[in-house]
Amino acid sequence: MAVKFDVKETERKPAIDLYDLVAELFPINRSLTGSGVRKTLGIVARHIGLEINEIKSGTAVLDWHVPMEWNIRGGSITTLDGRVLVDFASSNLHVLAYSKPVRGVFTRAELERHIHTLPDQPDLIPYRTGYYADDWGFCLPHNLWQSMNDEVYHVEIDSDLSPGSLTFGEFFVPGEAGDEVLLSCHVCHPSLANDNLSGIALMTALAVRQARQKRRLGYRFLFLPATIGAIIWLARNEPVLVNVKHGLVLTCLGDSGRFHYKRSRKSAAIDQAIAHVLRHSGFSHEIMPFNPYGYDERQFCSPGFNLPVGCLMRSVHGTFPEYHTSADNLDFVKAEALDQSYSVIETLLDLLDANCTYQRVEGRGEPQLGRRGLYRAIAGEREVGGATQMDLLWFLNLADGNHSLLKMAIRADIPFARLESSARIALDAGLVTRVPNDQKRIE
Amino acid sequence: MAVKFDVKETERKPAIDLYDLVAELFPINRSLTGSGVRKTLGIVARHIGLEINEIKSGTAVLDWHVPMEWNIRGGSITTLDGRVLVDFASSNLHVLAYSKPVRGVFTRAELERHIHTLPDQPDLIPYRTGYYADDWGFCLPHNLWQSMNDEVYHVEIDSDLSPGSLTFGEFFVPGEAGDEVLLSCHVCHPSLANDNLSGIALMTALAVRQARQKRRLGYRFLFLPATIGAIIWLARNEPVLVNVKHGLVLTCLGDSGRFHYKRSRKSAAIDQAIAHVLRHSGFSHEIMPFNPYGYDERQFCSPGFNLPVGCLMRSVHGTFPEYHTSADNLDFVKAEALDQSYSVIETLLDLLDANCTYQRVEGRGEPQLGRRGLYRAIAGEREVGGATQMDLLWFLNLADGNHSLLKMAIRADIPFARLESSARIALDAGLVTRVPNDQKRIE
Amino acid sequence: MAVKFDVKETERKPAIDLYDLVAELFPINRSLTGSGVRKTLGIVARHIGLEINEIKSGTAVLDWHVPMEWNIRGGSITTLDGRVLVDFASSNLHVLAYSKPVRGVFTRAELERHIHTLPDQPDLIPYRTGYYADDWGFCLPHNLWQSMNDEVYHVEIDSDLSPGSLTFGEFFVPGEAGDEVLLSCHVCHPSLANDNLSGIALMTALAVRQARQKRRLGYRFLFLPATIGAIIWLARNEPVLVNVKHGLVLTCLGDSGRFHYKRSRKSAAIDQAIAHVLRHSGFSHEIMPFNPYGYDERQFCSPGFNLPVGCLMRSVHGTFPEYHTSADNLDFVKAEALDQSYSVIETLLDLLDANCTYQRVEGRGEPQLGRRGLYRAIAGEREVGGATQMDLLWFLNLADGNHSLLKMAIRADIPFARLESSARIALDAGLVTRVPNDQKRIE
Repeated sequence: MAVKFDVKETERKPAIDLYDLVAELFPINRSLTGSGVRKTLGIVARHIGLEINEIKSGTAVLDWHVPMEWNIRGGSITTLDGRVLVDFASSNLHVLAYSKPVRGVFTRAELERHIHTLPDQPDLIPYRTGYYADDWGFCLPHNLWQSMNDEVYHVEIDSDLSPGSLTFGEFFVPGEAGDEVLLSCHVCHPSLANDNLSGIALMTALAVRQARQKRRLGYRFLFLPATIGAIIWLARNEPVLVNVKHGLVLTCLGDSGRFHYKRSRKSAAIDQAIAHVLRHSGFSHEIMPFNPYGYDERQFCSPGFNLPVGCLMRSVHGTFPEYHTSADNLDFVKAEALDQSYSVIETLLDLLDANCTYQRVEGRGEPQLGRRGLYRAIAGEREVGGATQMDLLWFLNLADGNHSLLKMAIRADIPFARLESSARIALDAGLVTRVPNDQKRIE
Repeated sequence: MAVKFDVKETERKPAIDLYDLVAELFPINRSLTGSGVRKTLGIVARHIGLEINEIKSGTAVLDWHVPMEWNIRGGSITTLDGRVLVDFASSNLHVLAYSKPVRGVFTRAELERHIHTLPDQPDLIPYRTGYYADDWGFCLPHNLWQSMNDEVYHVEIDSDLSPGSLTFGEFFVPGEAGDEVLLSCHVCHPSLANDNLSGIALMTALAVRQARQKRRLGYRFLFLPATIGAIIWLARNEPVLVNVKHGLVLTCLGDSGRFHYKRSRKSAAIDQAIAHVLRHSGFSHEIMPFNPYGYDERQFCSPGFNLPVGCLMRSVHGTFPEYHTSADNLDFVKAEALDQSYSVIETLLDLLDANCTYQRVEGRGEPQLGRRGLYRAIAGEREVGGATQMDLLWFLNLADGNHSLLKMAIRADIPFARLESSARIALDAGLVTRVPNDQKRIE
Repeated sequence: MAVKFDVKETERKPAIDLYDLVAELFPINRSLTGSGVRKTLGIVARHIGLEINEIKSGTAVLDWHVPMEWNIRGGSITTLDGRVLVDFASSNLHVLAYSKPVRGVFTRAELERHIHTLPDQPDLIPYRTGYYADDWGFCLPHNLWQSMNDEVYHVEIDSDLSPGSLTFGEFFVPGEAGDEVLLSCHVCHPSLANDNLSGIALMTALAVRQARQKRRLGYRFLFLPATIGAIIWLARNEPVLVNVKHGLVLTCLGDSGRFHYKRSRKSAAIDQAIAHVLRHSGFSHEIMPFNPYGYDERQFCSPGFNLPVGCLMRSVHGTFPEYHTSADNLDFVKAEALDQSYSVIETLLDLLDANCTYQRVEGRGEPQLGRRGLYRAIAGEREVGGATQMDLLWFLNLADGNHSLLKMAIRADIPFARLESSARIALDAGLVTRVPNDQKRIE
């Protein structure tokens, strides 16, 4: 299942080893707030000039308030004779996120109300959160819980939930134009590799890439605690939103499943662009309609913002057995899968950046390609693979100031990059001009 | 094949026993005009405050004139030795509707020109009319006619065709708004049960229902002799037509066939509404394009009116063998089928009535459902049947003042009633306002 | 596979025997320019008042210049002992079109660079051109070339490429209105029967037909050397283009393959019209999207003109083995196939000419057809084949000033000619008026 884009060499490796970055981030305990998020963003910031923001607990933001900051040092369930059965140190999934501190001896029955297991996947630890639950809890393998038959246990969670701040990261690389592409991932999950260290690693590598290369558009990379992080960013950046022409939430991109793209709420160019890229990528994929569940596209696509933001995944949250369990680990995520995801997204970004509109200098009739060396001299020769001439004819026919390159590529059903090449040839030959952005009649 | 609407209890019985009403109306001889129509409307008027209108014969109306009134007391074909072979008293289908009076002895050959049979269904009596034919005739089983080998027969039709009036019924229950729903059935067929005593019975029961319950829209119930009745009503009610936002012709709704809905000419909300109701009804059904043949939708959808009126049927006229024969009788129509039809239409009317538009008070981002008790505290718990939370997310995402509840239900592909529940929850929580009708941007 | 149009008798023979005309034109050597084109147009001009235009070599036209005129008297490859192996006199395909004159003795290796063969079709002569190649060459069966093992050959091409002119023909039959239909074929191929003597013969016969009959639209018939001919005509006729409401390039219409219609670039009424005609023709057919390769639709549909011009073919250029070889001859083309193509196009032209818009005089309700003798008196009689009444109901329902007859025919899915008959009946009965062209709201 090697990457097989038709024209461009896309197997260029990302500047950062994606799998290594996932592995480096894996052990850290992350949550909506707290030191784990800061540590994670600190690692990202070694690669890009990440701006790190701290928003004070209690700050009002739209319909919400920034929550207390949660930090945890340890958590365990121990038999009275001192055997540690469940230990946060061995897996940070063991403690319900946002657990209050607790310390004491509980009967099994009392404890049970605080225990989360997966009876259908009895060897896995579930991932659970109780952000606004004012509760505490443990997550453990069902088999383990079944084997725990003592009458009482010693329980300890050494956490604190107190005023502090919520942390998020942002990195913006400006373009020639004011228009920009927004990319977003969540940074609030603990040791879960696919959901969503894959997104954090891809965003970091893509940010390095976009910062290094010539670009027409600006690129904004957001590393956000889910929901509240997106709401905070949106509320604080309303003047910027008008520039967001395309957006993408990146998540669950490290497993080996087929690609899934969930369309934006409003039906936008990004939807067509990704569908086009996936269609010509050689990868199995599926386009899904928008729905109001999922990741932070929920916030970007809320009716008051309604931004052109979709969500790119491989396997879809909630549909693969490893989802939100201890099986979403460094075995589940594959280096090759991460690289494939990277290649799809870089192709997409290159498409968006090059998706301009062209207009023929003289649109009446075909230009005489022969005298410009752009036509084979003996017209009868059968074409051998060389779709190039046909690409150029498509480009010249549709370069009417009303078709973006993407619209052309979709109508002609040929990969975008080949129309981009045609545009370059035609521009060099003086056959077309690029329509300035502010005169474009189309998006 | 019990009614299986997903959310609402719709097996509430109609206030009137539908089958009993069909049975009560069955023996009456109806035609375009005459005492049978008056008697029929008189029975309907026992249940609802029906306004009964009489329009004088000869009255000019659009391209037509109100026909003479036809009444008939008897009709027979008798052998010269006195054996009655064909008798109107045993079936009112035996005499061609609008037959002139006749009395005399005719040769078999002379009589044959006035005989209508069904050679392919030789035991059934056909239903035939000759409204403007200035003729007389008998309808009888083909086998009977084949067995009639006398040279001459005594023939008598005791009818009269003379100036009188055409009778139709109307019942209007006003709503809060000026907008209204028009429902129409024909009342001009003699002893035919499915076509269209089923329609008359359903209209009567639905009128009782709508009059009793709180309603936003007005409901207009028309009991019309086909074609000329609809033309008369339309011509006399032009100022009302602008209020007709949805309309439905009801016919052939008592047999056990699958549902058929014929779309309106203009493509209207009613078309989407019925398609949605049928899709979630659990009943087999088919949506048909508009065509200019059929029932009074022909008049409502004539180009000068072009009202949003479709036609709901179970089996389609002309496609079932009992159609327009003596087999369209009280055995062919089933109580259960009538009740199912009732449940579909009441669900539709409830949908139309509740189909409002809502707008989020604060549309930026999702509202914090948790602090309003509208979100499960432990986010990781898998959903168990509880589509409710997803419904609410759909509603809140699409409550932008541009989506009616029906548009939401179609986009989300969930039953209307569940979005209606979501709307109520969100309204109670102060999360949305209802967009006043006259500010709605959509229908 | 006889012509089976539903209503009209379309097997009327064309005024000219199509096959005979193809056969008469077959031996002539045609190219972009030269005496062969003049001779061809001279034969066409015996049937229609063809205007023949000569454009001087070197004339600048849009992005092009009119090429030198090419004429050829002979060409051969001969062994040194005088055996003529390849002779232009036996097939004018033998010499590469626009070959420079050459005379001399060449080694087999030197000659090889000027030889064109078809290794996969070793007995056929390919058709090759080198219009702007400044070269010479021979086309011959691959087997023949393989058998030629002498070390040297005597080669002669007696041609000249010198200032002269390019010749094209035009014939216009005006209509009542300014609107017109453009039909175009190419006249630059030598002895190739399907591509495109079929087009020339059909155009000639259709021109005779249209000139003879009453017509609403004008019809413009263009006989053009491909590409440069179309560019010249377009450049010289810009004021006319606004009148071109429909256009069609005719090519490859003499073989027995299924019909193929390639849509216009802009999506126009012609596309719907041909799809409708083919759908009801009884012939197997396929509708293809526009692409910028093919025949002179490339020029008519270039972005600066963007005319509503499609291309009608039977087998598609490049997809049948006889294409551009000596097998595209008088055996490949069939009289019956030409006649079928003629019948399709004449049906299309009649449709375009009759495609008016009508409006009901009184659109409210159905008119009373009975008193006008347009309704069967006994309404219950089952319809026997007589779709006529249903056609009339469709027409009267859609005659709202917004539906052309074609739109009606497509919506009702009945052949255009039956709605045309309905229109005539309704017009005679005073039920509708024809909407004048300049008040039409639709095309």
